[in-house]
Amino acid sequence: MRILSGIQPSGSLHLGNYFGMMKKMIDYQEQGELFCFIANYHAMTSVSDGKALAKGTLEAAANFLALGMDPERSTFWVQSDVPEVQELAWFLSNFTPMGLLERCHSYKDKIAKGIAANHGLFAYPVLMSADILIFNSDKVPVGKDQKQHVEVTRDIAAKVNNEYGEIFTLPEPDIDDDVATVPGLDGQKMSKSYGNTIDLFQTEKQLRKQIMRIVTDPTPVEDPKDPDTCNVFQIYRLFLDKEQQDALRQRYLAGGLGYGDVKQELFETVRDYFTPFTERRNAILEDKETLHKTLEMGAQKARYAASKVMRKIRKKSGIAY
Amino acid sequence: MRILSGIQPSGSLHLGNYFGMMKKMIDYQEQGELFCFIANYHAMTSVSDGKALAKGTLEAAANFLALGMDPERSTFWVQSDVPEVQELAWFLSNFTPMGLLERCHSYKDKIAKGIAANHGLFAYPVLMSADILIFNSDKVPVGKDQKQHVEVTRDIAAKVNNEYGEIFTLPEPDIDDDVATVPGLDGQKMSKSYGNTIDLFQTEKQLRKQIMRIVTDPTPVEDPKDPDTCNVFQIYRLFLDKEQQDALRQRYLAGGLGYGDVKQELFETVRDYFTPFTERRNAILEDKETLHKTLEMGAQKARYAASKVMRKIRKKSGIAY
Repeated sequence: MRILSGIQPSGSLHLGNYFGMMKKMIDYQEQGELFCFIANYHAMTSVSDGKALAKGTLEAAANFLALGMDPERSTFWVQSDVPEVQELAWFLSNFTPMGLLERCHSYKDKIAKGIAANHGLFAYPVLMSADILIFNSDKVPVGKDQKQHVEVTRDIAAKVNNEYGEIFTLPEPDIDDDVATVPGLDGQKMSKSYGNTIDLFQTEKQLRKQIMRIVTDPTPVEDPKDPDTCNVFQIYRLFLDKEQQDALRQRYLAGGLGYGDVKQELFETVRDYFTPFTERRNAILEDKETLHKTLEMGAQKARYAASKVMRKIRKKSGIAY
Repeated sequence: MRILSGIQPSGSLHLGNYFGMMKKMIDYQEQGELFCFIANYHAMTSVSDGKALAKGTLEAAANFLALGMDPERSTFWVQSDVPEVQELAWFLSNFTPMGLLERCHSYKDKIAKGIAANHGLFAYPVLMSADILIFNSDKVPVGKDQKQHVEVTRDIAAKVNNEYGEIFTLPEPDIDDDVATVPGLDGQKMSKSYGNTIDLFQTEKQLRKQIMRIVTDPTPVEDPKDPDTCNVFQIYRLFLDKEQQDALRQRYLAGGLGYGDVKQELFETVRDYFTPFTERRNAILEDKETLHKTLEMGAQKARYAASKVMRKIRKKSGIAY
């Protein structure tokens, strides 16, 4: 089973990204043949600062590799290193009714938020379809907001298959309804835009400072506390197995637990968990030559996989003359 | 001065195509640096029969080469052999307001005619912009119906230049208002869809048959005739210089001219004019290996020219990481 996932490049990561998405992605390597790419073409719909995009791309690659992406076992590349996907997007465009794109919520939502209605945003689902179909992906893990785009992909693929025979695999969206929403410092969903994140890959000092800012209630130390409404507990549990969670829960309920102490414990836990990753990430970013070679190998693997579909498309459509 | 022109692949050509467009195109080689391509990506918006498209592409290439396209002097290639143009189209999409595309008459006209509204048709002007801008074309000869697309190209290019500095040359449309409308057998504009064409590259017998079908009025042989309302004269004059036209005009006005005789003369003229071209075309199509090599050379020249712009775009946008 081939699993495909693309992630927009971003240098900075927080616990919400990690537990909500990246850890899962890396764990997919156990479940099937993982194809994972840094979606830098897609990022162009929102980022025009070229230096930031290039830097974000390399950092995102380093993040993934540091966190456990195995570039030998999986296929891991930067989207623009397989430019064939743009040719496929053009091919698919001719099988994409305008109504299908006009009905996309994601586009409509962005316009409603005041983002300029440009053709890149509008055509985004066609490029995403090409990303998926060029690798004959079986499974595409997506958030609920992206489910419609996988449906668009299936519609387009079915139209092409109807015209030219079974070229494309119809992908299945894999929507994880059970995503642990990671609370931020203030209890809202952890998000960069709320400024309530605990970031990966920062100094101990910065990390401690963030964790100490987690909002807690004014229950006195000696009183019993409710772990289920405590932001510290809700974040801490992400690092604990069932047994450890129960033990911590008991300490909350027993009273005598100081929030300052449990924050200190959480800090140490987060630090110990991510320190090896941070060190690897820094080492990766210090050796750019090796990083580029790793990505080049990934691009070659991806292009090879893409070439199988593209050969058929070029022949059937008559682009190959 | 760099002149760019793209022509949709079509194997069959008639006198209207030749005098209305192809001859002009070939003559551009005298005026500047000609970049001319067979627009097979664009053809995908209307042709889904891959075999027909592939065949049409090769035949269109053979037609051009037979009629005088010099692949050493000019840059002559098949559009899909420079797939970078699709990557540029994606880049440009992010600078293309939806309104700009929604206002395109060509798209609206096609929809009004009942052609299915698909994304390929809608996005066509973005791909055309990429075709033009990737070569920093100075001049783009277009029909009146395509003038708006060159304006769209200029708008998009200006937006990019405004963001990233002077990357793109703003192209000038070159609209030839003086295009000799070639009349067909029935006096209407010569057009495949009217079934009134005189075709290039056919047998003598077929050619003669078509020419004998030219509609004439019932004026008796001995009477004077009006060359300006005569379809035979209007077609014949395309092959004559000023002096020869005047001589023929005198014969019309003097009376005693039989339409059958003048048709026979026209047949012989057309035959003699195109026989060398037809022979060359057939020879070209018989040696597919050389034809492919010629197109490969053209593609290499075009890719080299495109790489200069693409290098800048990839750097400025951050696709090059």
